[in-house]
Amino acid sequence: MQNKCKHRQLCAAPARHELSLCLCLCRAEDSAMENIVTEKKAEESHRQDSADLLVFILLLTLTILTIWLFKHRRCRFLHETGLAMIYGLLVGVVLRYAIHVPSDMNNVTLSCNVNASPATLLVNVSGKFYEYTLKGEISGSEINDIQDNEMLRKVTFDPEVFFNILLPPIIFHAGYSLKRRHFFRNLGSILAYAFVGTVVSCFIIGLFMYGCVLLMKQIGHLGGDFFFTDCLFFGAIVSATDPVTVLAIFNELQVDADLYALLFGESVLNDAVALVLSSSIVAYQPEGDNTHTFEAMAMLKSFGVFLGVFSGSFALGVATGVVTALISFTFTKLRELPLLETALFFLMSWSTFLLAEACGFTGVVAVLFCGMTQAHYTFNNLSPESQDRTKQLFELLNFLAENFIFSYMGLTLFTFHNHVFNPIFIVGAFLAVFLGRAANIYPLSFLNKITSNFQHMMMFAGLRGAMTFALSIRDTATYARQMMFSTTLLVVFFTVWICGGGTTPMLSCQKIRVGVDSDQENFVSIGPDGVEMRSTKQESAWLFRIWYNFDHNYLKPILTHSGPPLTATLPACCGPLARCLTSPQAYENEGQLKDSDSDLILNDGDISLAYGDITVSTDATGAHTSGTPVGGVAVNSDEALDRELAFSDHELVIRGTRLVLPMDDSEHPLPLDSHRHKNETMSLVS
Amino acid sequence: MQNKCKHRQLCAAPARHELSLCLCLCRAEDSAMENIVTEKKAEESHRQDSADLLVFILLLTLTILTIWLFKHRRCRFLHETGLAMIYGLLVGVVLRYAIHVPSDMNNVTLSCNVNASPATLLVNVSGKFYEYTLKGEISGSEINDIQDNEMLRKVTFDPEVFFNILLPPIIFHAGYSLKRRHFFRNLGSILAYAFVGTVVSCFIIGLFMYGCVLLMKQIGHLGGDFFFTDCLFFGAIVSATDPVTVLAIFNELQVDADLYALLFGESVLNDAVALVLSSSIVAYQPEGDNTHTFEAMAMLKSFGVFLGVFSGSFALGVATGVVTALISFTFTKLRELPLLETALFFLMSWSTFLLAEACGFTGVVAVLFCGMTQAHYTFNNLSPESQDRTKQLFELLNFLAENFIFSYMGLTLFTFHNHVFNPIFIVGAFLAVFLGRAANIYPLSFLNKITSNFQHMMMFAGLRGAMTFALSIRDTATYARQMMFSTTLLVVFFTVWICGGGTTPMLSCQKIRVGVDSDQENFVSIGPDGVEMRSTKQESAWLFRIWYNFDHNYLKPILTHSGPPLTATLPACCGPLARCLTSPQAYENEGQLKDSDSDLILNDGDISLAYGDITVSTDATGAHTSGTPVGGVAVNSDEALDRELAFSDHELVIRGTRLVLPMDDSEHPLPLDSHRHKNETMSLVS
Repeated sequence: MQNKCKHRQLCAAPARHELSLCLCLCRAEDSAMENIVTEKKAEESHRQDSADLLVFILLLTLTILTIWLFKHRRCRFLHETGLAMIYGLLVGVVLRYAIHVPSDMNNVTLSCNVNASPATLLVNVSGKFYEYTLKGEISGSEINDIQDNEMLRKVTFDPEVFFNILLPPIIFHAGYSLKRRHFFRNLGSILAYAFVGTVVSCFIIGLFMYGCVLLMKQIGHLGGDFFFTDCLFFGAIVSATDPVTVLAIFNELQVDADLYALLFGESVLNDAVALVLSSSIVAYQPEGDNTHTFEAMAMLKSFGVFLGVFSGSFALGVATGVVTALISFTFTKLRELPLLETALFFLMSWSTFLLAEACGFTGVVAVLFCGMTQAHYTFNNLSPESQDRTKQLFELLNFLAENFIFSYMGLTLFTFHNHVFNPIFIVGAFLAVFLGRAANIYPLSFLNKITSNFQHMMMFAGLRGAMTFALSIRDTATYARQMMFSTTLLVVFFTVWICGGGTTPMLSCQKIRVGVDSDQENFVSIGPDGVEMRSTKQESAWLFRIWYNFDHNYLKPILTHSGPPLTATLPACCGPLARCLTSPQAYENEGQLKDSDSDLILNDGDISLAYGDITVSTDATGAHTSGTPVGGVAVNSDEALDRELAFSDHELVIRGTRLVLPMDDSEHPLPLDSHRHKNETMSLVS
Repeated sequence: MQNKCKHRQLCAAPARHELSLCLCLCRAEDSAMENIVTEKKAEESHRQDSADLLVFILLLTLTILTIWLFKHRRCRFLHETGLAMIYGLLVGVVLRYAIHVPSDMNNVTLSCNVNASPATLLVNVSGKFYEYTLKGEISGSEINDIQDNEMLRKVTFDPEVFFNILLPPIIFHAGYSLKRRHFFRNLGSILAYAFVGTVVSCFIIGLFMYGCVLLMKQIGHLGGDFFFTDCLFFGAIVSATDPVTVLAIFNELQVDADLYALLFGESVLNDAVALVLSSSIVAYQPEGDNTHTFEAMAMLKSFGVFLGVFSGSFALGVATGVVTALISFTFTKLRELPLLETALFFLMSWSTFLLAEACGFTGVVAVLFCGMTQAHYTFNNLSPESQDRTKQLFELLNFLAENFIFSYMGLTLFTFHNHVFNPIFIVGAFLAVFLGRAANIYPLSFLNKITSNFQHMMMFAGLRGAMTFALSIRDTATYARQMMFSTTLLVVFFTVWICGGGTTPMLSCQKIRVGVDSDQENFVSIGPDGVEMRSTKQESAWLFRIWYNFDHNYLKPILTHSGPPLTATLPACCGPLARCLTSPQAYENEGQLKDSDSDLILNDGDISLAYGDITVSTDATGAHTSGTPVGGVAVNSDEALDRELAFSDHELVIRGTRLVLPMDDSEHPLPLDSHRHKNETMSLVS
């Protein structure tokens, strides 16, 4: 076949940095045949993509069936995520070594005079234009690999898929299913671990790794650049803990709820902190030529980026949650159409992510706080069917995304081409991770007066998972990043398999109570002396009490149909405004002098019957203290807080619980329904 | 800034058709700055993408809120899909005319000597390699548009998104929620409409449009090529009907169930037929130079493609459905973990699509039959919670996808750049669509003995929707395709707004019964004379009776836990095999001499109490006729069939019903539960 290419240059535009289009012209005479070939190639490529995705789907199917087998046989030494990784590893080995695809491609060289990489590239082949989109930068060493094995590259996903598709549902689910009672009870400790602890851990790991890197440089084991910022970046990404495995076992064994809350709260928040931290480390760019020296201004700017991105994402997430709550509060008739309600909830939560990304904030962080806001306000306005639907939907999405990430993780160990396994760096990393975790947990636990067995357990439960992996695979262009990625994979494997598998022995070794019914414990705390259980929580409760009063008296009545009417909580001068904002249902609540939260506790056990109206008595303005505490117990707002949050926990499925305990109490909507019914009849009577 | 580009040609490989890689080399000196610019550009592009998607999400949110308002006010003149289109139109107008983005890009010309368009393109800019992926072909006229308005192009989705992401859940939902009783009762008519009718309609429209095209050529109104195959292709794509709007109103008004089944069955199947038909028309390629002449061999080959693709997709869909049923049948303990069960169901259904695409069949068609198989077999093996979850999940996905497609449809009227609105073609198309529908409905209705008011209603309800749109937007490269796309949009708008809005007046004009309770009607049919209602269905039932017996006696027992035990239905010689394949639950059923399907009817009304064991008496082998019909009524297998399918309908939500009637009978799981409970106690007694 003869090709007569005529080069033609459309226009020699001056090289500017805003260019985003590029035309590539080439003419060949044999257009008809080429056409068919191109179409066939596109079809072939689509088929191949389908087949690759199918491999993953079948992998997930296999994982699910095996998980079932494990659950059925009550094996606790290997969690589903560990299992998914093993399957991923096996498939990776098969793809790497067992399948040999004959290399059927040839290189065609395009010589062209562009000086930047535009987002869109137009190539003119035989009079037909083909559009190409920028996929990303490729390191020089990878080019040979592309030619080596196209097939392995095919099963490699764009790392942005993890951030834009797989992480959001996982993080949203975490926020939406937070055990809020215990979370808020331990808010002080959790915030300390998540913010102070993660930053400390990041810097400890960074410094330690910098020492290792210097050592490696000394003995000539370093094959490329490795700067201090790279070390800090590594510190940030391996500081994100993911205790899915541990928490699943905690749930199954019903481990102490405070320990559960500490671990869960810490891991959820420190994902967000580590993510923002890593992006502000990347943003550290001193001026001048030497881009890796220390500079106070650049440092301050990075710190500003951290604060700005975190608070911006937080504000956006909360704002979208509040808007959703307001919509569901205003359009009450939406409750009759659960499908619309669920769709609205899903779309609003998704738009949080998109809005944050569009504004330059971090979508994943926004989604976390959106989830928490939705659970706290919107959830109360949803119809019971929508409550179930949204929970189940995000549970399913979380399950699929999580298992996909973990099996992909196993796969990449063999299919990723640029692994840099450096023994010194790996040993150093394991030590650094251990030290960083210790520096995070022990000093802060001492300050927060957490018992030593809890400290050891938290130390042990610092598993690394989805977030660490997603952060490390996001950029594997340089030598340093490749070494980090390979090492991170090993850290994840080790912690998930060894620490995850060792949870049960560790629990019994540390003599931590198992089989604790968190509701039971709640009622114990309201025993005759009323103080015994709150010794650990009093320290952090003070900072939350102000917030709680504000939330209960003003936000809940405005955003949900529960809580006291605003007319009761606002000062008398705001009367007209309050009447206008209060929903009719709130007045019904007022008629009974209790809100639905405390009412539920009424149905739960007879001992709390006397406290049916405590939540109203927490009112700081003193407008409604008609419901006086009975029995002479000093009932303070902490208990009301406890109960309110306990109520919320009832309705939310604990992360992963469904998998372990189908007889979880969230499965019994009956008390709630009977309560609702009772509420209706009572309002008819009154 | 100075750029010193050095052209370098890596290797001058011979031009082969298998090439899939291409290197494009160019060197510039200013690499550091370029790097940052590229990164910023990628970030900017990501932000823009997020913002675009956000527009759609907010559009959907707005649509949902307005739908709710319409439902609330009981407006029936405009359906949600019509509403979504209006919002899409408005946003399209705003994007097109109100927002002016300053064109900030320049063209850089790449001159290069390739003779084909590879799937991956590597561009070397300043020593860094950037990877580009092939997005698709662009028509010459579009190139200027790209330069004109990048922003409008940004809100344009890859047409393959419709086929690979949005259509599958819609079609699966259609299959999963098919009202199977009435569908099978009218199977003959539905198959006639779907296969014969769609082909007839396609050819009538194609011939008529070819006449129009010849006329246009005569008077010089044609601005490009328009071949007979293009006309036929147009005929195929506008023959796919989408009666979402009509059926939603039918549901609300409880229109005659047979009419509903005819319309729904026809529209679901003719989507599949039209899709395969259009791809086999594209596959029509006569040998030789003149590629648009008639040639018998090519025609036969196209026909072969049609049969092959359709039957292949059908077989694949059914096969995956059966495999899922077998898994859920074997791993019965999975019922304890509804999350795993739902995930498995979802993954298996998705893998049908991927498998079909990977094999070169049509994923959408495979998914339709997979949905029907899942509903018929797998659904019976799922736990009640998973039954709810899967229904709700696909209902939500269907709702979101459908509204997205319709609002996108409205948007493209203004944002698509290559509209070709030809008055003659448009008028011709409307006439042709009318004629084609008439040629589909009236002759076949005459053969199937369908009353004239039903015929007129079906004629009127031939709305065009998602499938027509997706097929027409798939390829808009040539002049002919652009004209088709523009005309198709208008046809969809017209039918959805005018025919959709006119459904209620049309129903009353044609004096079609409304307010018919389909269950009630079922029991009327088993009145004392027992024949009155089956006059319309007897014709088609004979071809289904053989299948029904086979399904009921062999497939249901093997694939589900309902149905009689195999030991009863297989000949005695197969005893050991039968015992091995029959589930213990089936024996329990046998002990009571009835299966769960007929048992439900027992609970439904007292008149049918006498027929509690009819389904076993349908056994063709005569092994179990112990349960004799009481009351002297000639009970034949048709009635059992009716009842079994009626039972299934109880459990499946009718497409769109949730939206309209929250008090739909599928909302009452109580009879089912009490039945289940009763079944258990009875087996304890026996």
